[in-house]
Amino acid sequence: MTDATTPLAALREELRTFNTERDWARYHTPRNLAMAVSVEAAELLELYLWSEDGALPVEDRRARVATEAADVLLTLLNFCASEGIDLAAAAEAKIAANAERYPVATSRGRLEKYDELRRGPAR
Amino acid sequence: MTDATTPLAALREELRTFNTERDWARYHTPRNLAMAVSVEAAELLELYLWSEDGALPVEDRRARVATEAADVLLTLLNFCASEGIDLAAAAEAKIAANAERYPVATSRGRLEKYDELRRGPAR
Amino acid sequence: MTDATTPLAALREELRTFNTERDWARYHTPRNLAMAVSVEAAELLELYLWSEDGALPVEDRRARVATEAADVLLTLLNFCASEGIDLAAAAEAKIAANAERYPVATSRGRLEKYDELRRGPAR
Amino acid sequence: MTDATTPLAALREELRTFNTERDWARYHTPRNLAMAVSVEAAELLELYLWSEDGALPVEDRRARVATEAADVLLTLLNFCASEGIDLAAAAEAKIAANAERYPVATSRGRLEKYDELRRGPAR
Repeated sequence: MTDATTPLAALREELRTFNTERDWARYHTPRNLAMAVSVEAAELLELYLWSEDGALPVEDRRARVATEAADVLLTLLNFCASEGIDLAAAAEAKIAANAERYPVATSRGRLEKYDELRRGPAR
Repeated sequence: MTDATTPLAALREELRTFNTERDWARYHTPRNLAMAVSVEAAELLELYLWSEDGALPVEDRRARVATEAADVLLTLLNFCASEGIDLAAAAEAKIAANAERYPVATSRGRLEKYDELRRGPAR
Repeated sequence: MTDATTPLAALREELRTFNTERDWARYHTPRNLAMAVSVEAAELLELYLWSEDGALPVEDRRARVATEAADVLLTLLNFCASEGIDLAAAAEAKIAANAERYPVATSRGRLEKYDELRRGPAR
Repeated sequence: MTDATTPLAALREELRTFNTERDWARYHTPRNLAMAVSVEAAELLELYLWSEDGALPVEDRRARVATEAADVLLTLLNFCASEGIDLAAAAEAKIAANAERYPVATSRGRLEKYDELRRGPAR
């Protein structure tokens, strides 16, 4: 599987099988899984906590980063399954909403939030 | 776009265009984006914080949940782009690793972590 | 030390000594420590992730909960030291602000956010 | 109130009165409050997300940082009240445990975790 060829539904289907085999779906309430997404996100963040200090050997770090990123995605897909959300449709809608909120003309090279952009420059 | 038809690469490509148009890629360091994933995950979590109390009208809540879930995915894809990670490949590898860690026979219906399962029942 | 007798400054002072002895203060930028607070908060959250399932022996859990709560406080105190914030003063100001935002008359027994209370009941 | 003069118990007592007046204690389960600590920590983190870009006027930022830090502490104190944890005692115990894990001789100027220090230098 690669990003180029894998529709999100294929990953969801793999996860569904995994969870059904283990009878885990019954623990997968939206609330539990929303908590789990935050926990996985923090495990990803932890790898960058003191990263300028290079305590972690580079190769080992790369593998752990990919693993933690995968955990965030898999937990998010479990969450979306529990809430009946089509994640690709939601993502496309959000990109469209962001394109409206952040027109190229006013947001180019700037990071203010859309409501701050509307008020004009911060200083 | 739907989960059934959208490869992750299609979303990544849309994001790449969005970011290039706004010259935002230069802010997209792995460390910044790892922070952003955690912030987005917490915004999703917040919708479930007092959810048993139903303060939020149901329909409004559903739309916000989908939007926050999308934000987590889009930020995670930006992160993977900044780190050169193929997310679908990482997700498939993680599912395979989990299948090994959690054999159906010993983990069915149980939520202990794999190292606790190995020690036998907690009580 | 107990909550009844320990001013926050006493904990800050212990931490300052600990960090100075190890020459760690130079890593303690506000940004690093804001990240660390989130990571510690997620470690606390993780103990409640599947908690209705009681996988963790009760006594062991209590000790870990206290330890993770302590980590959040200590990291927050390091953060406040790095930003020059008096945490007790900030906390008192926030309680006063909350008392104004959430008058007893309108917020008793209700969990809506203050701006939702102002709009009247959600349904 | 200042860090120099305020024992944690004084803040806890203020919070207890605030919550009792609003009949909010019944929502304050450990699990809800563990979630709330993570949400507050992420709001603090968000202020540092793109902070090298200075989008936020400096003075406004300082006030918001202190407010969000206060929110983390107050939510943590609510959490400790719900779990019956004496936070100052837990913090002192954790400082002592850290002093043992990170002896000055081996950890001075280094950020590896205690189990990595034991294994010797990472490179």
